[in-house]
Order: sequence, then structure tokens, then C-alpha cells
Amino acid sequence: MTLSKGIKNCITDVPDVHVGHVTLYEHVNEKDTICTGVTAILPHSENLFRKKVVAGNAVINGFGKTTGLMQIDELGVLESPIMLTNTLSVGAVMQGTLAYMLNETAEIGDTAGTINLVVGECNDGYLNSIRLQAVKPEHAITAIQNAATESSLEGAVGAGTGMQCLGYKGGVGTSSRLISAENKKYTLGALVVSNFGTREQALFTANTIENPDTPDGSIMMVLATDAPFSDRQLKRLAKRCAVGLGRTGSTIDNGSGDIAIAFSTAAKINHHSNQVTESMTMIRDDHPIMNQFFQAVAEVIEEAIYRSLQQAETTVGRRGRKLEKAPI
Amino acid sequence: MTLSKGIKNCITDVPDVHVGHVTLYEHVNEKDTICTGVTAILPHSENLFRKKVVAGNAVINGFGKTTGLMQIDELGVLESPIMLTNTLSVGAVMQGTLAYMLNETAEIGDTAGTINLVVGECNDGYLNSIRLQAVKPEHAITAIQNAATESSLEGAVGAGTGMQCLGYKGGVGTSSRLISAENKKYTLGALVVSNFGTREQALFTANTIENPDTPDGSIMMVLATDAPFSDRQLKRLAKRCAVGLGRTGSTIDNGSGDIAIAFSTAAKINHHSNQVTESMTMIRDDHPIMNQFFQAVAEVIEEAIYRSLQQAETTVGRRGRKLEKAPI
Amino acid sequence: MTLSKGIKNCITDVPDVHVGHVTLYEHVNEKDTICTGVTAILPHSENLFRKKVVAGNAVINGFGKTTGLMQIDELGVLESPIMLTNTLSVGAVMQGTLAYMLNETAEIGDTAGTINLVVGECNDGYLNSIRLQAVKPEHAITAIQNAATESSLEGAVGAGTGMQCLGYKGGVGTSSRLISAENKKYTLGALVVSNFGTREQALFTANTIENPDTPDGSIMMVLATDAPFSDRQLKRLAKRCAVGLGRTGSTIDNGSGDIAIAFSTAAKINHHSNQVTESMTMIRDDHPIMNQFFQAVAEVIEEAIYRSLQQAETTVGRRGRKLEKAPI
Amino acid sequence: MTLSKGIKNCITDVPDVHVGHVTLYEHVNEKDTICTGVTAILPHSENLFRKKVVAGNAVINGFGKTTGLMQIDELGVLESPIMLTNTLSVGAVMQGTLAYMLNETAEIGDTAGTINLVVGECNDGYLNSIRLQAVKPEHAITAIQNAATESSLEGAVGAGTGMQCLGYKGGVGTSSRLISAENKKYTLGALVVSNFGTREQALFTANTIENPDTPDGSIMMVLATDAPFSDRQLKRLAKRCAVGLGRTGSTIDNGSGDIAIAFSTAAKINHHSNQVTESMTMIRDDHPIMNQFFQAVAEVIEEAIYRSLQQAETTVGRRGRKLEKAPI
Repeated sequence: MTLSKGIKNCITDVPDVHVGHVTLYEHVNEKDTICTGVTAILPHSENLFRKKVVAGNAVINGFGKTTGLMQIDELGVLESPIMLTNTLSVGAVMQGTLAYMLNETAEIGDTAGTINLVVGECNDGYLNSIRLQAVKPEHAITAIQNAATESSLEGAVGAGTGMQCLGYKGGVGTSSRLISAENKKYTLGALVVSNFGTREQALFTANTIENPDTPDGSIMMVLATDAPFSDRQLKRLAKRCAVGLGRTGSTIDNGSGDIAIAFSTAAKINHHSNQVTESMTMIRDDHPIMNQFFQAVAEVIEEAIYRSLQQAETTVGRRGRKLEKAPI
Repeated sequence: MTLSKGIKNCITDVPDVHVGHVTLYEHVNEKDTICTGVTAILPHSENLFRKKVVAGNAVINGFGKTTGLMQIDELGVLESPIMLTNTLSVGAVMQGTLAYMLNETAEIGDTAGTINLVVGECNDGYLNSIRLQAVKPEHAITAIQNAATESSLEGAVGAGTGMQCLGYKGGVGTSSRLISAENKKYTLGALVVSNFGTREQALFTANTIENPDTPDGSIMMVLATDAPFSDRQLKRLAKRCAVGLGRTGSTIDNGSGDIAIAFSTAAKINHHSNQVTESMTMIRDDHPIMNQFFQAVAEVIEEAIYRSLQQAETTVGRRGRKLEKAPI
Repeated sequence: MTLSKGIKNCITDVPDVHVGHVTLYEHVNEKDTICTGVTAILPHSENLFRKKVVAGNAVINGFGKTTGLMQIDELGVLESPIMLTNTLSVGAVMQGTLAYMLNETAEIGDTAGTINLVVGECNDGYLNSIRLQAVKPEHAITAIQNAATESSLEGAVGAGTGMQCLGYKGGVGTSSRLISAENKKYTLGALVVSNFGTREQALFTANTIENPDTPDGSIMMVLATDAPFSDRQLKRLAKRCAVGLGRTGSTIDNGSGDIAIAFSTAAKINHHSNQVTESMTMIRDDHPIMNQFFQAVAEVIEEAIYRSLQQAETTVGRRGRKLEKAPI
Repeated sequence: MTLSKGIKNCITDVPDVHVGHVTLYEHVNEKDTICTGVTAILPHSENLFRKKVVAGNAVINGFGKTTGLMQIDELGVLESPIMLTNTLSVGAVMQGTLAYMLNETAEIGDTAGTINLVVGECNDGYLNSIRLQAVKPEHAITAIQNAATESSLEGAVGAGTGMQCLGYKGGVGTSSRLISAENKKYTLGALVVSNFGTREQALFTANTIENPDTPDGSIMMVLATDAPFSDRQLKRLAKRCAVGLGRTGSTIDNGSGDIAIAFSTAAKINHHSNQVTESMTMIRDDHPIMNQFFQAVAEVIEEAIYRSLQQAETTVGRRGRKLEKAPI
């Protein structure tokens, strides 16, 4: 079945989902280059702690450091922005995101307990001098704030600034599909930070001779939808990211932390409530529309990866290393 | 990297791995056709309970009825043949496999406790009148016995007799790859029973007009290798089956029980032992050979699926339904 | 907080939950004794395939052979009775349960695909000559039929006939608690088949001198409630069974398959539906009533285990082995 | 079976395991008190990144924010100290631990990729003004450094400074057991940070009248042993922590992040190696010694929790809240 793309072909086609970036790029000295950043994905524009969204995740390869997935598994909800950055900046981005959320939400750490922060990462250390830890907590705050106004950006921006993909310059990519059944219309969007694979693995082209000796990388894959799903179902969607990923050439290398997180904006669950029960609506697993969603997941991930390549320009990083724009 | 195929391009390229089939095909009356069977995969030719092999598994989509995976997860070993059949014959095949193993192993159920039987299944109910439950326990025994002498068969045989794949006649397929590092050479083989997908999803060809209205199916994927891996690592291999599967067109439909089981014949672990400890050898996760294995998994699964189509002939089943040979 | 017991202190205090047993006990010859059986738990009295209940499970120790848990994890529903028996009779009980469900449900295997059967087991091979495979498919059918009329039985009945627990005669035990919040009242019930542990481990009494040399066993723990929970939440309940179990003395021995399955009768989900979405109600995880449920799980499991001991009489099995009634 | 305690009855009875604390306690103003800290557990005294230890974990209740478990699951090794702190200081402690490890290990982030940091937490917000974020990265460094010289401390120290347990003052507790078989002797030790439960739940005493209105807490449980185990087996050990926890009165409340991490010092796995394979030794799962380890886990966790109470003094925290020394 052919699925239509959303208007912007972007994760922000899902209503009220927002994305913001902070890009850091600076040649520090002959050896070192700062070539990294932060990307923030906001499931909606209200307070994310007070109004949680249902979420699930899939650890396709767990050689990664993403925080917050354990609580998503246990409680089935997301209560923070999804923050993406480089592998040695998870702590700094947690700090900034925490500061932002504490400032917005006086009850956290006082009357309302704690907050679960979701920070994902890939290792951009091929181009970026990660030991310099250029990402500071305030960059996380700025990325979140940028989400309010930013139009969608792709390629070597935000968390994608220093990433490499299939031996070429990778980065941020996004895509979306429309799914409909009877009188209901839904949108599924993806945003990836691509940082995996070698030129030899790439399926979009024949192998080239000069293959830079890039290490195993990773990929962060975020799915957003306005269709009503339970946490279990969102985990099902997240697991299908492996299909889209595999179709680009990845065979999920040992060192590649391949992580998928999916959330639905259909329900907003109040942190504060005196009610004993909560009512939920969910797509029936056996309705044919479910397979359309699974197809859409494969498509948006594959396309988002390719867009991350198409939108990224040739970039020079530390030690003079260069990653070329992909011929795609 | 280009990986060579094994001599037979078959799971039995892994030394001492054996496969046996029982095929049942009979038009019972105008409405009903028996079109099903049993396939047995033996990790080695000695007593499988007394000499266990290390194993892992991945539940890529859990809409399935495979037995025995829980204990593989807990203990990391396989102690029975891997039996494959149709979805309503799991009990019968358990019965037959149990009878076989009890007969071979006097201590089971007496001094040695119980045995964990692994029986996988796909639903061949499109062609096969599964309510007739044509598979009997003795068919399981015969399939195991056939493994001793049978050369490799593919297509509409054994558990694959009634299966459909990508809208065409599916069934049993197998493939293998050679992996080497320094002075070590290993073989990785796969056997699948393919029963998933529609013509529309098939990536090997453009869509055809007449798409039979086949239901969501399933796929059983078995990996065998003589390379030394731990149970954790075999689970890693099993998870990569999703890549090969996705590359054929599957997006892991809701109703498709997509199950992967991987075992290594490098170590045989005695059931009976007075030793406190056991010594194990395993491939280092970070050695480049690991990524070759992951690539090999994607390749053998993709190829085994395609071979299951290539080797299967057009088949007529219950209610006069016909599945055509795939144009591949 | 003190929780009240249900009227019968039985899993059948949950409205419309039914339990049936078949008990097999016969001295065959000097060496062999049949001392085993089947227990069926029916979540409600309608067709269980057509009206599924939400379910979850926890594998506390996976040295066991319970079938059907994979699909419960994937789809979050139970569509068959929960059948309990001895470890080598899983296949036979699957066969009987399948026959029963096929007979009741003409569409299974025809227009409605397949059915997921849940069969749990413990190893009663200390007393029971399990190699004789005395349990036949028809015993499973009878156990299901008995559930319609049977009052609750405990001790050495059904699947509990041959079991041993904490070095004494174990078997079937059951218990229930009432939980209320505001104007809502709920019941949580448990049924266990106890087959674990040694006299030395028992916390209900000081160690005795003569400790029969019983092997590691297992425990099947089934939770039923009429409170509305999601599959994720039912898994949370199931995990808490480890607390009740541990409080009796178990430290979850290597060879003990300790499996918990939880279901809620609050919603009945139609197998057949043309609707795109399903509406669900669930207890809020953060409502104080949730901790009452967790407390109730620990209490009903602990008490059900003790009742399985209290209600079981001294039993003689194969090779003249005797398990004494526990001094509790 | 009665198991002997180690000489110090401490996790540091496992040879070369070290523990260090930083304790922060200061009344800031009428409303706010800093009452928190950091605890570092070092599996050995060499470089932990270069010489990794085998590890496993169990998420008993995932309402928590521990980092690094995903990679432990994937690769089966631990490559950093295990750091414990309060729930809003995970980012700061990651930062400090990262700085420490970068300083010790020039190749991280340069030629050797990234590092997986394990930081666990409980919420000490009942006594501690966590919004002040008093824990700074340098406190993590100091805690690690203190591990070199510190003798074992328990009670209101380090990460335990502000914790509450069973309605009384909780904190750090530790315990150990000796396990032997034939001519082999092993030690199993535990360290917990206890922060769960109410006076009503406590099983060590009858309920008292005045029950402070403490929120759901958490518990971090760390197991160390010099016995050789695989990652799968260490996960098995970690799962048994639920038994020891449950025996103190916990029923694993909704808001309690109950996390267990287990490591073995028997093997040190080089980060840098050119070898294709690695050799491992592991305890046989079916050797009776395994059940002794499981018993030992239950015992050390139960005792460590009680010691955390016994060694902690009455403490006054923010808003004048007071947690009394437990009558145990």
C-alpha cells in the first residue's frame, strides 16, 4: 500500500510536536575541532511533566547510553523532552534539561517527587573532539527553547552536527507518513540522528573505493504519532525501526547503539490527579491499520536516514578528518 | 565485505547439524486438504539432552506459540531438537519429540528431572485444513529420524509444505556463509520456514495485479554456527534476523510470529557433571569478526527466504486455494 | 494496611472466575505410581477466545516450560483457560485444551487464525512416575468442564496431586483479598501450585531433622482480579509474586520454574470487531490503591502457598516415597 | 544451610572491592537542608575501563533513573565504578565520574570510543532539598578517590545520608557471606542504599502509632562476588534481591525504583585485545553451590537493609522533618 507523506515530511507534521537544535562547530586548534550539538524533541508545547504522553521504546542494539528508558518500560509514559547529543555529553544535557524542567515546574523535587529525563546519544568522536566536552547544560536549555520557533532543520545540525553515516556525512533526518482508516486520519513522523555504517554497507549506491576508516556508530530513532496507542503498542512500533534501518544497509554493528523511542500525543496524562482510574483509547492490534503503521515505521526510518545524508554537507572535523556529502 | 557461501549453502554446512522433514499432502474432500508437515533441526548427532548446546533467541514479533524459549533465556542452552510445524500441531509435535527423547534418554523424568522442548510454528491454515490436526506425534519422531540420512530439502517440504510467503508459495529455505579471522574459520547457517507477507510487500519484484488475500503469517528463523558464542551473543545474532527479514519486504505484520533461535555447536555441555565450574570460549564482541557474523545473519536470512520461494512449487490447498510459485 | 479476605478466600472470589481439577492417583506397580493431575482456571464462563481478557506475566525463574507467555507479552491478552499440570504433560494438555476450544469455536483454524494456549507446569516427578505420561488430552477437557460446577478445592488435587513444597506435601492453594478506594471495591485472588523448596528453607517452622532429599521444584502462581489494569500493570502485579514466594522461605532455586500470570476480568475484548479503536480503563499507577494491590499480591501468594500445605494430606508416591503433611 | 559471614560482613570482603563516600549535610536556611551525598563502589583498584568485569542487573521496579544498565544487558560487562546518589544528581555524578575516567584513561573519546557510566539513585527529597542540587561533579570524583583508603561506613553516609527506610532513617548498609564447594571458597557481598517503605510495612517490629507520611522511595542493591559467573548468571543473582527485599516488609511500591546490579571480579576483560576469542569460567547452574549463592543473595540483601537502619542515626532534614533511628 502506498502511504502519503505529511505536508512537511517531518516529525513536526504530528500536531504540536516541536524540534529545536543547538549546533556547535569550531576549529579549536590544529588537532581539535568542536563539531557537535544538541537536539530537543518536544511531544507537545505544554508542561511535559504535568502532561505526560504514552511512550515505548526498543533497544535494537544496547551498546549505547540513552537514559530514561527503564522508567518508560515500567510506567509507559514520557515526562520530559527527548534530548539527543553526543555520547560524552549525556550528563551535561541531563543537567540542562533538569534545570529547564525544575524552572518550569516548581513541584518537582518538592511535592511531586522526581523526573525521568530521556537523553539519547551517538558517538560523534570521529569528527568531534568529544574529550573537550563542549556541550554545556545551557545548550540543552537553548535547544528546548529553540523548539518553540524553529522550522525543521536536517543534516549537520544539532545532535547531528558531527555524525557520520554509511561512510558519509550523516546527521539529523526526518520524515512522515499519513495513515487513515474509515474517517480517522493519523500522522506518524520520525526523526533520526544517523551515525552508523560504512560505505561498503550502503545499499543506496555501489561501493566506492575510498572508504574512510570510520568506527561503528549508532542511531537514535524517535517516532511520534497522534494515533492512540498503548505503551505496549508503541514498543511494537519502535521495534519495527530495525526494518527501516536494515534496508539502508545496516546490519546493526556491534558498536552501534541502535535505540528507538516512540510516543503518542493522543492522550495527555495528568501528573496530578485524584482519580482512581484513567481512560485510554488504543488502536486495535488486529485492525488492518496496524500493519499500515508498521509499514509507515519502516518507511519513515529509511527515508529519514537518507534525508540525513542528503541534507548534510561535507564536513571537516578533528585531526583534519573529512566526511563527504553522500552521493544520494 | 563479501562473504563466501558454504559448500551446500545450507544450514547443514555447519558440521554435524542435521535436518529432517515429514511432508503431509492429501486432498481429503472437496473442502479439506492436508498440506502440512514437520521439520526437525538437530544441533548434533549425539544425545541432545546429555550434551546441550549454547543457545539464544529473539522474539521479533511475539504473535506466535513457540515453546521452550523461556528456559533458553534462563539457562542459555538448548537440550532438544528444534522442531517446526503448523500452529495447531505444537502439542502433537511436543508429544512426539518427548516420546523420542524419553526413549533415547532413560534418566529424563527419573533421575534427571525434565526436558525443555523447543517447538516452533507458523500458521499454514490458508492452504492446510489445520482443524483436522493431521500432524501426529509419530510424525515428529519420523522427522527426527529422517535427519540422520536426509540431504537438504527446500521449498514445500516438512513444516514448509503449506506455508505462503509474500503472496506466493513459501516454505523451507536455507543458506550459509563462511566467516574467517586469522587462522580460524567458521560457518553460519540458517533455515527458515517462511510464511509472511503479501505480494505488495515483496521487494524482489514489482507488485502484481492479482494479490491473493492471504492473512498475516509468520516466520521461524533458525541460525546455527560452529563459532563459539555465549548465550548473550547468540541472542545478539538472533536479533539481527530482523534485518534480513525486513530486506525481503516484511514490515513484521501484527499477526506474524517472527521468531529467531540461534545455537552454537562449539561447546557441548554435559547434563551430568560433578564439576563446580565450566569453561567456555567466546568470540570477543569487539573483534571485527563480530560484524561479519552480523552481516552474515542478514545475508543468510534474506537468502534463505528467497530460496524458500525459489524451491517451492505452485501448490493447491483447502477450498481450492492455490499459491503460485514466485517469479524469482 | 490490613486487607480483608474475600468471602471464600479463594481465586473464585473474583466474579465469574472458575477452577476445575482432574486428579489422577493410582499405584501401578511396586515401582510406579500415578500421582498427578490437571487444573484449569477460567477467567470467565463465556468463550475465552471470543472474549479475551487483559493479561501479563512475570518469569521469576525461567527453568520451566509454560507455553503461551510470549504472545501474552506481545498482545497483552489471554484467550484460553490457564491450564496447569505436570512438566511432561504440557503437550497432552495442550492437545486437550485445543480440542476443547476448537469444539467450542468453529472459526479457530478456519476464518479466525490460531489460538494461543497457556499451559503451565511443575515437576511432580518425586512422587509421580512422569515417564508414564498418565495425563491424557481428555483429562484437560474434563478439568475445564469441571470448572463449571466445582467448588474450590485445595491441597493434593488437580495439578497439585503430586507436588512437594518446602519438603512437605504441597499442591494447590488459593487465597484472596479485597481492595477498595472511594466507592470502588475490587477483589484480587491467587491460585498456586506449590512445588518448591526444602524443609531447611521453610520459614513457617524450625528445621526438622529428617529432610527428604527432594529436588528443586517450581511454582505456578496465577493472579486474578476484577480491577481494571493494562497488560503492563498486570506484569507489575505478577512481578510482586516474588515477594510472597520469598516470604515463605524460597530463594528461587536454580531448578525451580517460578512463573506468575495475572489477568483482569474488568474488560472483555472481542476477538471479532470492525472497530478501529478500543477503549480501556485502568487504575492510575500513582493512586495509593496501587500499593494496596501490590501488598495484596504478596499476601495472597504467601497465604496460598501456606494453604497448599495445610490442605494437602500425607501422600505416598513412586518408589514408596512419602511426603508428609506439613506441621502448619 | 547456614552460611558464614565474611570477616568484615561487608561488600569489601570481596577481595579488592572498594567503597568510598562523600557526605553532604548542612542546614541552609529555615526551609532548606542539604542532606545527601555520593557513594562509589569500585569492582577493583585498577583502571575499570581497561579491565572490565562481568556484570548483570535486574530491574525489580523500574520507577528509577539508573544509567548504564542497557549496555550491561547488551555486552555483559561493567566498565566504570558504580556510583550512587540522589535522584536529581545523576547528571552531576555522571559528569564527575566521566571527568575522573577521562583523566585516568587518555584513550577514551580518542582512540577507544566512549564509556558506559553506571549511576544509580534514590530520592532523598523527604529530608534533602534536592532542588538545590548540592551534589557537584567534584563530589563524585572525591567519592571515587575516598574508596582507596576508606574503611567501610554504613548508615547516614554517602548516598545514604538523606534516605528513609521503613519509616525510619535509612541509608547505606552492607553484608557478606562465604560460599564454598569442594576446595573452592567464594565471597558474596552486598551494599544497599535503602530508601523504601513505611513503618506499617516493616516486618522487624510491630507497627508504631506515629507513622511519618513518607513517600514511596527506592532501593539500590549492589552485589559483588569473586566467584566466576557469566552475565546471564549475574542477572539471575540480581533477580534474587527481590527475595531479601521482600523479607524486610517491602512489597515493591509503585514509586520505588528497586534496582539490583551484580558483578563478578573473577575475570578481568581487557578493553584492548587483538584476540579473536576470550576464555571464561563459570559456575555450573546445576551445581548445588548455585542455590547457596541464591540463598546468600537473599541473606545479604535482607541483612544489609537492616544494617542500614541499625547504623543510621536520627536525622533532621528540610522543613524540620525528622527521621528517627529504627528500633532494631
